[in-house]
Amino acid sequence: MNIKEIIQQKINNKTKPLGSLGQLESLAMQIAMVQKTDTPKLIKPNIVVFAADHGIASEGVSAYPAEVTPQMVYNFLNGGAAINVFCKQNGINLSVVDSGVNADFNETDLVIRHKIAYGTRSFLSDRAMDYEQLMQCFSYSEKLIRSIALEGCTVIGFGEMGIGNTSSAALIVHSLSSLSLEQSVGRGTGMDNDGLKRKLEILQKAKDFHGSIEDPLLVLQTYGGFEVAQMTAAMLEAYRNGMLIMVDGYIASAAFLVAYKINPNILGSAVFCHCSQENGHRILLKELGVTAMLDLELRLGEGTGCALAYPLLQAAVNFLNEMASFETAGVSNKA
Amino acid sequence: MNIKEIIQQKINNKTKPLGSLGQLESLAMQIAMVQKTDTPKLIKPNIVVFAADHGIASEGVSAYPAEVTPQMVYNFLNGGAAINVFCKQNGINLSVVDSGVNADFNETDLVIRHKIAYGTRSFLSDRAMDYEQLMQCFSYSEKLIRSIALEGCTVIGFGEMGIGNTSSAALIVHSLSSLSLEQSVGRGTGMDNDGLKRKLEILQKAKDFHGSIEDPLLVLQTYGGFEVAQMTAAMLEAYRNGMLIMVDGYIASAAFLVAYKINPNILGSAVFCHCSQENGHRILLKELGVTAMLDLELRLGEGTGCALAYPLLQAAVNFLNEMASFETAGVSNKA
Repeated sequence: MNIKEIIQQKINNKTKPLGSLGQLESLAMQIAMVQKTDTPKLIKPNIVVFAADHGIASEGVSAYPAEVTPQMVYNFLNGGAAINVFCKQNGINLSVVDSGVNADFNETDLVIRHKIAYGTRSFLSDRAMDYEQLMQCFSYSEKLIRSIALEGCTVIGFGEMGIGNTSSAALIVHSLSSLSLEQSVGRGTGMDNDGLKRKLEILQKAKDFHGSIEDPLLVLQTYGGFEVAQMTAAMLEAYRNGMLIMVDGYIASAAFLVAYKINPNILGSAVFCHCSQENGHRILLKELGVTAMLDLELRLGEGTGCALAYPLLQAAVNFLNEMASFETAGVSNKA
Repeated sequence: MNIKEIIQQKINNKTKPLGSLGQLESLAMQIAMVQKTDTPKLIKPNIVVFAADHGIASEGVSAYPAEVTPQMVYNFLNGGAAINVFCKQNGINLSVVDSGVNADFNETDLVIRHKIAYGTRSFLSDRAMDYEQLMQCFSYSEKLIRSIALEGCTVIGFGEMGIGNTSSAALIVHSLSSLSLEQSVGRGTGMDNDGLKRKLEILQKAKDFHGSIEDPLLVLQTYGGFEVAQMTAAMLEAYRNGMLIMVDGYIASAAFLVAYKINPNILGSAVFCHCSQENGHRILLKELGVTAMLDLELRLGEGTGCALAYPLLQAAVNFLNEMASFETAGVSNKA
């Protein structure tokens, strides 16, 4: 038997009706295949939150003002945000990265200093970042993820904070998938109908200015936030280090889409933690051929979907490692 | 402000876009209302698994032989079943009740001895149990739940084990809801198409024999297993003790349906942990007007859905108690 058959046989011999743990069984198989063992382990789970500001935010594409980005970074550092609470609950280490926030942090603030600039340019009339800035994003994230891998981490999730970043995500998803711009654009932090209409008009202008772009790196350079680019790079590096990758909501899925276009093999190492309320996420997940673990009408970001779904990954690994088999438990199998 | 308004304001002032935690926000509200406080606590979570045998099992309605019921009880007692693994992972106390298993346990086995008989009668030609047996189910469960409440438990889930009990559940659900018998009957532990057809024919015979029954207690007496009846009674007693009730899959929902028909107020104290693969569960949940927390294609029972969903209940309580408010964190609210 090959490793896949060995794992499947182990799953099937557990004391439960065949297939009755549903998606937990496919997750167990996936995690075991990523780790190439029938006794996989989730070690030192980590969530990295990337924060950055967006030039496009000044065009009125968000329900919240841009100063919320640094304010929320302070909230992460002080332990007061949702992601802090959920990481603490589930024993997940949390790291916060300043990828390009429009504020200076104090030397004593426990933020990882990977600032590219004080926010991107507005992509209405220019590319959001220079090619050199994009490369710097990759360089920073590769170093960061390698250091986390060296600590022994086998499972990592990524979150983001950046007022304006659902606009960035919308144009990335539209550029690299079959979704129309209208399908790709959503309410973000809570736009009303008028705001949503205006947001779509603004993003249509940006699309008209840049035209169609298919090269994933150029898409990232044109529309990406620094937090999105650093997340894409981090996912690719996590894949190279054999980690299981927890993908959060719509913005994280846009970052993942870029990574997937660069290296399609990454799909086998990714688990999709929740289906966001953001318009295009459900369609995008379907296009990727994946099923989200949770569907709780979340639209918060920060990696909260990863932190909330993590116990289900643990459950998948635990049933595989800890449940008795029909033979050892002396239970009769199906007639 | 009344207590509901106070809780809603507390939720709305958390540092996150309004409503962005989706179902976790409605769960937080529900738990806070059950406990009548804006600082609810989940204390000493408990899952009680009731096990019993069914006369109907001898008619060939299950993919597994009846001897699996006691074998799985031993598996629970030895810590080898899925529910053991998930309870251990999430810090949930597990109790196992012999409600009517067709086997004698040893004095040293740590099972709660609430055996009514060595299984019910086949409801093809008789009521499954006597009225006195039904009352004994209520008496046992009331005592059990009161003792658990006295230990300080505020959140409780219920599981079941009993070869044949999806047949029992199907007739209960059909009797007490708008679901047709065909909608109510499912594949249980894994019937193939021929088996499913045979199961439906057998249950139609039982229905024809007993005719329509509307009284919830008489439905329970006619079709219930001892584990189902003890679960119904336990849910009602948990409600009377102010506990939050975690409802598992199809059989647990059938037991809940009986409890709900006896006391509709119980709905406010119940959270629905997962949507089972069993045919009628999704329709039944819709009829009850509730949304399940998880939809992972589970069809195992044992209370596994409760154990897996519990961290989401914790997350709901934790964000309410631990997240910073816009004011305390110095974060700007929506413009």
